Amino acid sequence: MEHLINPNVQQIEISGIRKFYNLVSEIDGVLSFTIGLPDFPTPEHIKEQAIAAIERDMTTYTHNAGTLALREAISNFMAEKYSLNYDPASEIIVTVGASQAIDIAFRTILKNGDEVIIPGPVYPGYEPLIKLAGAVPVYADTTATSFKMTKDVLEPHITEKTKCIVLPYPSNPTGVSLTKEELAEIADFLRGRDIFVLADEIYSELTLDREHTSIGSMLKEQAIIINGLSKSHAMTGWRIGILMAPSGVAKHMLKVHQYNVSCASSISQMAALEAMQNGKDDAIRMKDEYKKRRDYVYGRFKQMGLSTVLPDGAFYFFVKIPEGFQTSLDFSLELVRSQKIAVVPGSAFSSYGEGYFRFSYAVSMESLMEGLDRLELFLKER
Amino acid sequence: MEHLINPNVQQIEISGIRKFYNLVSEIDGVLSFTIGLPDFPTPEHIKEQAIAAIERDMTTYTHNAGTLALREAISNFMAEKYSLNYDPASEIIVTVGASQAIDIAFRTILKNGDEVIIPGPVYPGYEPLIKLAGAVPVYADTTATSFKMTKDVLEPHITEKTKCIVLPYPSNPTGVSLTKEELAEIADFLRGRDIFVLADEIYSELTLDREHTSIGSMLKEQAIIINGLSKSHAMTGWRIGILMAPSGVAKHMLKVHQYNVSCASSISQMAALEAMQNGKDDAIRMKDEYKKRRDYVYGRFKQMGLSTVLPDGAFYFFVKIPEGFQTSLDFSLELVRSQKIAVVPGSAFSSYGEGYFRFSYAVSMESLMEGLDRLELFLKER
Repeated sequence: MEHLINPNVQQIEISGIRKFYNLVSEIDGVLSFTIGLPDFPTPEHIKEQAIAAIERDMTTYTHNAGTLALREAISNFMAEKYSLNYDPASEIIVTVGASQAIDIAFRTILKNGDEVIIPGPVYPGYEPLIKLAGAVPVYADTTATSFKMTKDVLEPHITEKTKCIVLPYPSNPTGVSLTKEELAEIADFLRGRDIFVLADEIYSELTLDREHTSIGSMLKEQAIIINGLSKSHAMTGWRIGILMAPSGVAKHMLKVHQYNVSCASSISQMAALEAMQNGKDDAIRMKDEYKKRRDYVYGRFKQMGLSTVLPDGAFYFFVKIPEGFQTSLDFSLELVRSQKIAVVPGSAFSSYGEGYFRFSYAVSMESLMEGLDRLELFLKER
Repeated sequence: MEHLINPNVQQIEISGIRKFYNLVSEIDGVLSFTIGLPDFPTPEHIKEQAIAAIERDMTTYTHNAGTLALREAISNFMAEKYSLNYDPASEIIVTVGASQAIDIAFRTILKNGDEVIIPGPVYPGYEPLIKLAGAVPVYADTTATSFKMTKDVLEPHITEKTKCIVLPYPSNPTGVSLTKEELAEIADFLRGRDIFVLADEIYSELTLDREHTSIGSMLKEQAIIINGLSKSHAMTGWRIGILMAPSGVAKHMLKVHQYNVSCASSISQMAALEAMQNGKDDAIRMKDEYKKRRDYVYGRFKQMGLSTVLPDGAFYFFVKIPEGFQTSLDFSLELVRSQKIAVVPGSAFSSYGEGYFRFSYAVSMESLMEGLDRLELFLKER
């Protein structure tokens, strides 16, 4: 029956990150820097509230958009942290992780043939969802602008069919984010056009050197803001994402959400309520640690003569592969075979990632030291 | 920006059940028989394992398809209960409730213009998902066959474009299910055609008078089996569904699932593992109670002269509205206004449900007695 599968589905593939992971998972004793999730446990106070929810039998369907209490807490959190102004009653949807938020946003706004502009290199989760919606991903090369989308990078790609721009900052895989001024330039350029901006701000709480700015605070009418608790509160397995959009758009997204999943887990929602109300600064402790690691790793990379942009968010470095390798996959494979350390080949992040590797520092300082020693040895031995 | 919304999304609406619920939720003191979820708590042994999972920090992403342990337990459960034979490694996906399982199944197999045949009256969740996938729902009238899909009901609707048949038995809203022989007739008719059967068996464990039969045991190559723990283990809020399909089809569904939600909640998965391994008979206690209620309600309906099919599954009656009412909505509104009891108008379940109302007995015996007394009074007073 496989010949009957929707061609849009046939053409999408499992992510390159996963493929590489499968390749190296058969090698014993590999030190992995491919990690895409925090190496901290969910904070205790959040776990306690989830347990209380189970004990109190809060285990039935909630409102499709999530409990009103949680939406109110999210609204307050976003107002306080990022000057965002979303009505809990009509402009916030609690989703099953940020992925589901992105998916229902695309399904709601995209139709066959629409174009979506994405900065490359980029997280590989957008392209398949755009294609599933029958639309066309259009990559804008950001390798010459320190991986930043700018008005000048964006402008040549705008056509009559452009329906949406993806702004995934702080960025996975590059760790780069946009300043308030950089965002304002893009917002000014887009204002008044029939184009949405989907801002995936899942790493917003891990902006390391300054306050995160959301484009939702400048261009609300056209903005679709994606966030969630996976990174900010080390809650990947709980599957809580956040979707914010103006009510006229959010009401359509809510229908898609309702039929897609009904609602997010009621227990996870109670955990999220605690995180949003009483865990506003949970990310700070993690951020201090990430910052220490980032500075250490950056120093080591410089010493080794590796070329990279200093990341100011998330927990990744995106590094140029040394000369002498054909592709980032060749480099990554030789590295894992000879030194048993795993990084993700840049080609997993669109063709604009070719020539780079992604190095995650969501691992302990000890592992970083050991891994960087091995990398240094690898470079010296060549 | 609302004018930019995908027309497929603009045309779908929130469900009629929800609309009616919103209408009556403003009236005080209403006794509701509109409930679509078990009135039992999640069994204690399941809650305990979920709490243990939180305490042990099992709070990170799992395999996209769900943990292998859970898929193995599901495979065993389905083999033992329904003689199903699905490989945990490649043919089972743990989803975010049955809704998400249905959605990713449709997204994987349907393309623009495909037709999906659905028995009417029916649960209102299929049509929007079919339309979102760009396909066309085609209703087959089952009101003359005791709400059962049969070969003869089905056959006239088959066209070149037919991609899938939905078999939602035991049925919400009618409580009816198909016997092994009835299923075999449909399986024989469909065997070898390029048509999928999506069997939504979410109420399988609540088949009251005999063993449930799954069409997956007769026509595996063409079958897509939907199940979940919401009804069998009173776990609606945990959001655990089950999708089973032959590996050649399941591998494509897994891609859609991966990009849609990554995975189901890790905590809910640990709860589900306990349910599948050590809660195989959790439904029996509930079933005994549902059966008692069903027999009581059926007797009362007969006494009142109401016409209904004796349901043999789920926890619903689908009842003809008495003469003298224009529509099922008129009847339901007058009933709630004069006697403060709420039932769902049949028109919420497609146009083939017009002239009926759905009465849920997922409420206590005391509420049933009180509600049926009020209904009797209502009928007498007219």
